[in-house]
Amino acid sequence: MTATLPSPASLAPDLGPPPDLGPAPHALPADSRHRFDLLSADAVFRAHEGGKLGVHATSPLRGAADLSLLYTPGVAQVSLAIAADPSLADIYTSRRNTVAVVSDGTAVLGLGNIGPLAAMPVMEGKAVLFKHFGGVDAVPVCLQTGTVDELVDAIARIAPTYGGINLEDISAPRCFEIERRLKERLDIPVFHDDQHGTAVVVLAALINAAMVVGKLLADLRVVVSGAGAAGHAVSTILRGAGVGEVIVVDSTGVLGLDRARLPAHKADLAAWTNPRGITGGIAEAIVGADALVGVSGGTIPSAYLASMARDPMVFALANPTPEIHPDLAHEHAAVVATGRSDFPNQINNVLAFPGIFRGALDCGARDITPAMMVAAAEAIAGLVHEPTAGEIVPSVFDERVAPAVAAAVRRVHESVQQS
Amino acid sequence: MTATLPSPASLAPDLGPPPDLGPAPHALPADSRHRFDLLSADAVFRAHEGGKLGVHATSPLRGAADLSLLYTPGVAQVSLAIAADPSLADIYTSRRNTVAVVSDGTAVLGLGNIGPLAAMPVMEGKAVLFKHFGGVDAVPVCLQTGTVDELVDAIARIAPTYGGINLEDISAPRCFEIERRLKERLDIPVFHDDQHGTAVVVLAALINAAMVVGKLLADLRVVVSGAGAAGHAVSTILRGAGVGEVIVVDSTGVLGLDRARLPAHKADLAAWTNPRGITGGIAEAIVGADALVGVSGGTIPSAYLASMARDPMVFALANPTPEIHPDLAHEHAAVVATGRSDFPNQINNVLAFPGIFRGALDCGARDITPAMMVAAAEAIAGLVHEPTAGEIVPSVFDERVAPAVAAAVRRVHESVQQS
Repeated sequence: MTATLPSPASLAPDLGPPPDLGPAPHALPADSRHRFDLLSADAVFRAHEGGKLGVHATSPLRGAADLSLLYTPGVAQVSLAIAADPSLADIYTSRRNTVAVVSDGTAVLGLGNIGPLAAMPVMEGKAVLFKHFGGVDAVPVCLQTGTVDELVDAIARIAPTYGGINLEDISAPRCFEIERRLKERLDIPVFHDDQHGTAVVVLAALINAAMVVGKLLADLRVVVSGAGAAGHAVSTILRGAGVGEVIVVDSTGVLGLDRARLPAHKADLAAWTNPRGITGGIAEAIVGADALVGVSGGTIPSAYLASMARDPMVFALANPTPEIHPDLAHEHAAVVATGRSDFPNQINNVLAFPGIFRGALDCGARDITPAMMVAAAEAIAGLVHEPTAGEIVPSVFDERVAPAVAAAVRRVHESVQQS
Repeated sequence: MTATLPSPASLAPDLGPPPDLGPAPHALPADSRHRFDLLSADAVFRAHEGGKLGVHATSPLRGAADLSLLYTPGVAQVSLAIAADPSLADIYTSRRNTVAVVSDGTAVLGLGNIGPLAAMPVMEGKAVLFKHFGGVDAVPVCLQTGTVDELVDAIARIAPTYGGINLEDISAPRCFEIERRLKERLDIPVFHDDQHGTAVVVLAALINAAMVVGKLLADLRVVVSGAGAAGHAVSTILRGAGVGEVIVVDSTGVLGLDRARLPAHKADLAAWTNPRGITGGIAEAIVGADALVGVSGGTIPSAYLASMARDPMVFALANPTPEIHPDLAHEHAAVVATGRSDFPNQINNVLAFPGIFRGALDCGARDITPAMMVAAAEAIAGLVHEPTAGEIVPSVFDERVAPAVAAAVRRVHESVQQS
């Protein structure tokens, strides 16, 4: 419900004449890998004019009586009540249903370090998805980047405003320490979607893909190509879900105890992955593997897939260009997934984050735990009643997804509270 | 316009059972000066349930085609365009129409340092007013307080998200340095409403009150009682508007060159106010004065008013308890104004801030200048065509106010650009 007195039309933002962008495709670097031939640049820019988000009052402001309830003097009663009992802020302010979508613009989509202003359209889009799919009021917070200390301090300082923090598009390895320190410092959920959102949906897809090919998670050998934010989180959730073996490959080769001077997040993976001590690169790692999860952004020759175990599962998630084109992957693989909406089995974080935050906010969880993430993945997988090679995850527009994910998160929270 | 696919009803926030607040009036300290006998606590708390603000998408999300325009892959084109030309963020993101209402909760209303959570209802209320009266999308940002350095750093770091910063309810004298440093550091408008919003409306009221009693601003002697955020800004704008003489009185007495060890904002006032070198307190300062502006929160004996010049103007703005009760002030004064809605001539910042930001955002002003503030005051005053002792300012619900203020701000900006 919005305020019933509309603002005078003359108060609409005066954005001035449209910019001279030149011929629209020239806005993209000529050598850009990111081509969107199927999308009209005109339509994209038109859809973004004036931004994608607005703020509205949830109660009508019809006159002096409403003003004295919603603002002074009435509001002073609410402020005093919260000062006496801070938990009341969850009931009498919008905090409880508001999530900050926080980025410093250092790793936006596949575009790299393009800065906080250029990150805004992505964070606004994310906020649109939060509201549409999860009923969460999300607001972008785009930060001038800085040291880990500076970013952690800034985010912690604004945290009283929000019921949760969704970190987004922050470069690795900074993202790991920023998330870890914020989780330690804050009593609201902090969730780096590029890590955990991806991991949850990959696990959901793998659960159903394994069912399609008749294998058990505990028996699977999975190769993860990429050891950045997504690679680390995917590997970690696979371990938590009981996958038999995980091998991680970065741009240098297989992670293992022989690798010297690894950054902390890779050393962490090297300590528990690759139990057979494979050395070499992706070609060596993939021999006998049941599944390949590509979150690297590079390319993988499809011929390598020939050495995998029976009925391989291939998730080539680099976007917009998968590590292996789905048509080539299908020559070897029994199940193929990508990050793209124009192929079957789209691995899209939107299946996870709206429901995860919806559930966490609803039950007042102070953290989004690994157990919640595994439960969320199982809930997503469970919505596909008879998985097939062409359908291992629900559609992103399946309205059952967010409520099912939210319910799974709440169940884990409640079972922990009771134990 | 909101997204056309409504969120499933089951996704509404589950706020749990209503809190046991005890009998509602007991939520207030028994000795509180803040009594709201005319307001039902039930109605106030009910109006605040779930908060007062929501976020919505401005474009429909009807399916995959909309998703690819508003989010990936389409959004990447917009991000790349902004990375190449940051000024496009004002056109293709919601930044240009979004203002952060920033507080650390150290000086909330008359309630003092009640912290960021307890400040939230006030900042949300302010955001409701921004949208309702100015069409501005305002979002609360409540900060864990800290040193001036820490607050300036945090606010500057999140600033790329917003088209303007409205500082609110930050304790003096910290508020002066925080505003000054942010104005130096940022290229968007920064406006501390407790200072400048109050000052603009006081000047508007004084312009019309002077007309009612047939005096010129240049001939006025004005006593300002209070040297905090509002007192400093009121004194400064009166000087800028050409008021003949200003004398400022703080809790120690009249500010003047004889006062030792003054903090910077009082030393600034002492340097140019009180040209006749009056010493003593309010009783001495007020002799022969044409106007008294109370922004102190204390009480002033009404008998003092007897020593003022012919047809005195008395603005007793402390809220909810004016420094002098309007009925007593009327025994001496020709024109009386207060901060309260239940007496004539309410001096309410809402007459100023929505239009000031509307105007500044519309014209892309990087600063809200003293000249803009004086122009805003003149615009507000000008809407009362025949001022009388009972009507020196328009109603806060007069829909002409914000557009007139915005137009005045834009005119000043344009005249400066052209010169």
